[in-house]
Amino acid sequence: MIDRPHPSAFRIELPDWFDDWLAAQPERYADDEARMAAAVELSRQNVERGTGGPFGSLVTSADGRLVAAGVNRVEPDACSSAHGEIVALSLAQARLRDWNLAEHGELELVTSCEPCAMCLGAIPWSGVKRVLCGATKNDAEVTGFDEGERMDDWIGMLQRRGIEVVTGLMQPEAAAVLHDYAARGSRIYNPG
Amino acid sequence: MIDRPHPSAFRIELPDWFDDWLAAQPERYADDEARMAAAVELSRQNVERGTGGPFGSLVTSADGRLVAAGVNRVEPDACSSAHGEIVALSLAQARLRDWNLAEHGELELVTSCEPCAMCLGAIPWSGVKRVLCGATKNDAEVTGFDEGERMDDWIGMLQRRGIEVVTGLMQPEAAAVLHDYAARGSRIYNPG
Repeated sequence: MIDRPHPSAFRIELPDWFDDWLAAQPERYADDEARMAAAVELSRQNVERGTGGPFGSLVTSADGRLVAAGVNRVEPDACSSAHGEIVALSLAQARLRDWNLAEHGELELVTSCEPCAMCLGAIPWSGVKRVLCGATKNDAEVTGFDEGERMDDWIGMLQRRGIEVVTGLMQPEAAAVLHDYAARGSRIYNPG
Repeated sequence: MIDRPHPSAFRIELPDWFDDWLAAQPERYADDEARMAAAVELSRQNVERGTGGPFGSLVTSADGRLVAAGVNRVEPDACSSAHGEIVALSLAQARLRDWNLAEHGELELVTSCEPCAMCLGAIPWSGVKRVLCGATKNDAEVTGFDEGERMDDWIGMLQRRGIEVVTGLMQPEAAAVLHDYAARGSRIYNPG
């Protein structure tokens, strides 16, 4: 049926321009807005350079040091689960060599758009203790992205697990990237 | 804070024994039970060889040909999202070089245990058209695994997206692997 052998590994890679973005980051982000500005900048560069969908995420320490960052790599890496959040969390875990980020302080996930149903499910498994979101589910959906069947009280669900949530942070700037992506006629992921 | 540089990629690998398992697979699985037996065998070998959690998954064609297989690699690969389903789906996508499995026929995900909230969210993004599950959420939870906040009508949610679901297939055999894992005192993932 398929002429390629069964692979025994898969790899998700950040785009070439990532090193330049990284070199421009401060030693510490001063506040929540500075963290979100960095995540939104990742999402914007990913669109402008044509290296994936319009989503960017960071993992930071509570005092604002960057642990890892990620962008959506679904199309370039041919992996439907390579959302920005999953990529950033996985890279943080790779860097710390531990699947459980809760062993390394009160780490935070900063994401340019609220998590889809998959990424929401991934957050409690990762061990982060705080989540900052930019654009909302509504912003994603009006742009044509399917966020999946996320429970209405997703913030309460995370809070009951000891994970603090802030959403709508720099929402206009974050949502503008989604709208620009849609306006370019870029491909929206809708399997099936 | 961390003395290792920011990684620009992460990699999820199947364990060494995978090639032997692969060599023993038939050209086609005769029926649903044969597919599930193969997924349960993966979950059992992963426990017995100490190479991850007690979960195994396959992606097959509608006529029973193996496209890809995966096992839980959370601890060995330090990645909280490396559940068996995500690994099998990602390897199928890597083999087909396409994030959207729906472009390659009516593919099926066969998994030794019902999906957790994260993997449930991942299924619609993958493009599979049918899901076969062995052990139930209850089997996972009595063994100590946290399946996350999955909606009650998860089967209806997938069906409304055009994805057929069968659960409880070879449930006693699939659940036995979870119980054996717990009885060995193996580590259960509960971040936080």
